[in-house]
Amino acid sequence: MTQPAFVLVRPQMGENIGAAARAMWNFGLDRMCVVGPRDGWPNSRAVAMASGAGRLLDEARLAPDLPAGIGEADFVYATTARPRGLTKPVFTPEAAMTDARARLARGEKVAVLFGPERAGLENDDIIRANAIISVPVNPAFASLNLAQCVLLLAYEWGRQTTEVAPERLELGGTEPAPQHEVERLAGHWEGRLDTAGFFFPEAKAAGMKQNFRNLWSRMPLTRADVQMLHGALRQMVRWKERGTPDAEQATDAPER
Amino acid sequence: MTQPAFVLVRPQMGENIGAAARAMWNFGLDRMCVVGPRDGWPNSRAVAMASGAGRLLDEARLAPDLPAGIGEADFVYATTARPRGLTKPVFTPEAAMTDARARLARGEKVAVLFGPERAGLENDDIIRANAIISVPVNPAFASLNLAQCVLLLAYEWGRQTTEVAPERLELGGTEPAPQHEVERLAGHWEGRLDTAGFFFPEAKAAGMKQNFRNLWSRMPLTRADVQMLHGALRQMVRWKERGTPDAEQATDAPER
Repeated sequence: MTQPAFVLVRPQMGENIGAAARAMWNFGLDRMCVVGPRDGWPNSRAVAMASGAGRLLDEARLAPDLPAGIGEADFVYATTARPRGLTKPVFTPEAAMTDARARLARGEKVAVLFGPERAGLENDDIIRANAIISVPVNPAFASLNLAQCVLLLAYEWGRQTTEVAPERLELGGTEPAPQHEVERLAGHWEGRLDTAGFFFPEAKAAGMKQNFRNLWSRMPLTRADVQMLHGALRQMVRWKERGTPDAEQATDAPER
Repeated sequence: MTQPAFVLVRPQMGENIGAAARAMWNFGLDRMCVVGPRDGWPNSRAVAMASGAGRLLDEARLAPDLPAGIGEADFVYATTARPRGLTKPVFTPEAAMTDARARLARGEKVAVLFGPERAGLENDDIIRANAIISVPVNPAFASLNLAQCVLLLAYEWGRQTTEVAPERLELGGTEPAPQHEVERLAGHWEGRLDTAGFFFPEAKAAGMKQNFRNLWSRMPLTRADVQMLHGALRQMVRWKERGTPDAEQATDAPER
């Protein structure tokens, strides 16, 4: 899939370049450009920090200055932490990635600029961008570092482009119990509890049975759960029978 | 506003606890609980790393074990990086924070669990949670650290609860130009360029004027831009007149 290029402008510490690469690759982004890195290029500390995302550094485009870093991008976003007194559209990360997707879909190339660790992009950089991206942080406390800023933009990209069910049920090697198995479980418990004298007093028995049966059917039970609940009940019966040797044998429990 | 508690379960390095506090406070979250921190509590390295978010550590609840850490929470989410073979609902961060907001709105207390750095939450922890949160990372590369995972959940909370215009125009001490000022600017340029012989050949002049006027009106000009464009044109005229002393005096330009 076409994707935005992430342009690190005059990054200082190699570790942060490596961390940025990892942040990107977590969300499938692998087009990095490095503009005038302070400690030269390639950077062994960046490589060490990138670990599994080292390919991004190998393939990163190295540019001597920002105009070269922007390259052939049709639309450029500049990430900033604070207002700059420049007249410029300001996007949230969400709106920016929506905008970027639309531009990429119609064949444009887009780039996102990230500034140096200490002070971020200079106004001289920002005037080369078409728009600003500002993460709406706590006005009383804005402290995102370079890799975190990269991570949030990459996350937004991934959130909008990755098809994932918002909620799903993870099944540990089993499957949801069909309703007839739940029905059989409910009958097993009701029968045994009835024999055990649980549904007392008589006047309340019908309501109690209803509540008990409703409990089973509103639980998201798996087949494994149902087997376990049958087994637990059978074991209670065996335990009871060991204690009273003259008790009648359990017969209504389904055996495996 | 009521908010979820973020519960760090058996965190190892103080630096990561401090970084988690910062990540939370960036998005206005300040309810932290620390369960059995490896290096004791309080932790000076956590405090040093938290810097401006130190208050979260001062006010953090310290719990000896997970049941105490969960405390009175009505609903508990466990963050995990990989499937665990447990049967459990799995939410995206987005769906989880939507669910958490709904629960908080109806008076429930919610908690989000984050595991230790090395291996994350154990299944023994996860079975105490009602649901799992899994960040949909690149299946080929999942490498979010503790503070990054906290950051993404905090960001999702902030994204859904903070009222921010998705796109706005930052104005550097000026305001958008009213249309009559743009009209006057267009007239000024058209007049001067006409005198300068720009609209040539005659047959194309009308179309060129139309295009030129359209250029001004589709630009998002500020009053400051308009003044600057008047000034630039006046200066070009002065420059021309210095070169040719007998030229007529500029009169149609609005002077400040």
